Amino acid sequence: MLVIKVGGSRGIDYDPVCADLAALYREGERFVLVHGGSHETNLLSNKLGKPPRFVTTASGYESRYTDRETLEIFEMVYCGKLNKGLVEKLQALDVPAIGLSGLDGRLLEGPRKDSITIVENGRRKVLRGDHTGRVERVNTRLVHLLIDAGYVLVVSPPAISHDHVAINVDGDRAAARMADALGAERLVILSNVPGLLRDVDDEASLIARIDPDAIDEHLELARGRMKKKILAAREALDGGVGEVILADARVASPIRQALSGRGTVIARRVLSP
Amino acid sequence: MLVIKVGGSRGIDYDPVCADLAALYREGERFVLVHGGSHETNLLSNKLGKPPRFVTTASGYESRYTDRETLEIFEMVYCGKLNKGLVEKLQALDVPAIGLSGLDGRLLEGPRKDSITIVENGRRKVLRGDHTGRVERVNTRLVHLLIDAGYVLVVSPPAISHDHVAINVDGDRAAARMADALGAERLVILSNVPGLLRDVDDEASLIARIDPDAIDEHLELARGRMKKKILAAREALDGGVGEVILADARVASPIRQALSGRGTVIARRVLSP
Repeated sequence: MLVIKVGGSRGIDYDPVCADLAALYREGERFVLVHGGSHETNLLSNKLGKPPRFVTTASGYESRYTDRETLEIFEMVYCGKLNKGLVEKLQALDVPAIGLSGLDGRLLEGPRKDSITIVENGRRKVLRGDHTGRVERVNTRLVHLLIDAGYVLVVSPPAISHDHVAINVDGDRAAARMADALGAERLVILSNVPGLLRDVDDEASLIARIDPDAIDEHLELARGRMKKKILAAREALDGGVGEVILADARVASPIRQALSGRGTVIARRVLSP
Repeated sequence: MLVIKVGGSRGIDYDPVCADLAALYREGERFVLVHGGSHETNLLSNKLGKPPRFVTTASGYESRYTDRETLEIFEMVYCGKLNKGLVEKLQALDVPAIGLSGLDGRLLEGPRKDSITIVENGRRKVLRGDHTGRVERVNTRLVHLLIDAGYVLVVSPPAISHDHVAINVDGDRAAARMADALGAERLVILSNVPGLLRDVDDEASLIARIDPDAIDEHLELARGRMKKKILAAREALDGGVGEVILADARVASPIRQALSGRGTVIARRVLSP
């Protein structure tokens, strides 16, 4: 089992991702695709006169403040336009795709954090009414039911809280939780950067291998959205996933290249290629 | 098996619909919910500076002209905001809902009609690039797989064309096709009117019963969106559905009331209540 997360940042072309997935499907590989949608969500938020608000939590992570209105915009982009767009692309490649959010069948469930402590202009502040949280539980029975019947899952946030509210969850960490729960051997996280860079402005400074025991010091090196990817990688490895690959979505055959070791590879044990 | 279609016109409150569905679920009833979203799609289209364009086809039916941009707005509303909103509401009532579009697992498939002949200012005109069509085939295997596993399906357009393109299909007719394919005994179509009215401006002029043999003359009586509901009813009855009920979504217990015979009932045979 393989879990592939493809980000939603500017500059990502889903066609090569889908072509790779179709090839994997034809080879009989079992996988789940998890996707993001942050760039498109920003565009729609701006168009609707509800510009995105990014906050930095007290623990140093960037997150989208998600009130109810933002949640609905988020759902429109993630579950509507992008999820269904990916399903349509995959169907055109003869892949029997089904798109699900974390709400559907409580696929992704966890606690809501309805207030967050943020740092704004150097001062701590509590924000309420946030629809964010994290994934604790994966409905693996539903995943297996559909995969065993021959379908391919295309999964997107939001997740559902224990008290039944839709929550925005980080897609990378949700993918890590899925990989762990499904006993996946590998987790591939594709985004609009080649992997973890030593110098964020120099793509040649890619760190090709990270020892899992050295992951915490690399967490400090990571900037912006990469921080959560490293955190996701740590969570996946802690959960039992054999290998996490952070790789570039913007190349030809992005999944093939990632699986052949291009990107930042964090392996708990050596896997056969 | 029961198929319930709830419209997406202005003035429909989904809470009583979901409460009724939760009660049916607890009683062990097997059903599928199909939903619309036209009012919300109009609102979003207007907000995004892409006002909806309704055309009247040469055969006299009103339809939304759906170019690619409109299709994506449509997906955002139907598959995103509304479908996930309904799933969330049902989950909060302990109903294990799963939302699917017709694209997912090719749940609803049929031919695309990429050009339509419309009548505008009394003149016939051919419009190209339309993403509309109709449902011919239902993936009943997927429906049964999920229902047998205990899930409740919340289904929305678009459907998928035979050549893998997302197509806007009429929700009432899609529900009729589902009811037929699933061998449903009953199809309930809820909207923001009490049923078929003899005088569209007088809700007291409700036609309570229609003989299936007299459906064609009632088709001529129907105006606007009601025309497609009567057509859907005819298609469902022709396909073998025992009873179609056109009823009001705006009342307390709308499904209960419809099932008890309130609305316009078109029955091929007498069913036990």
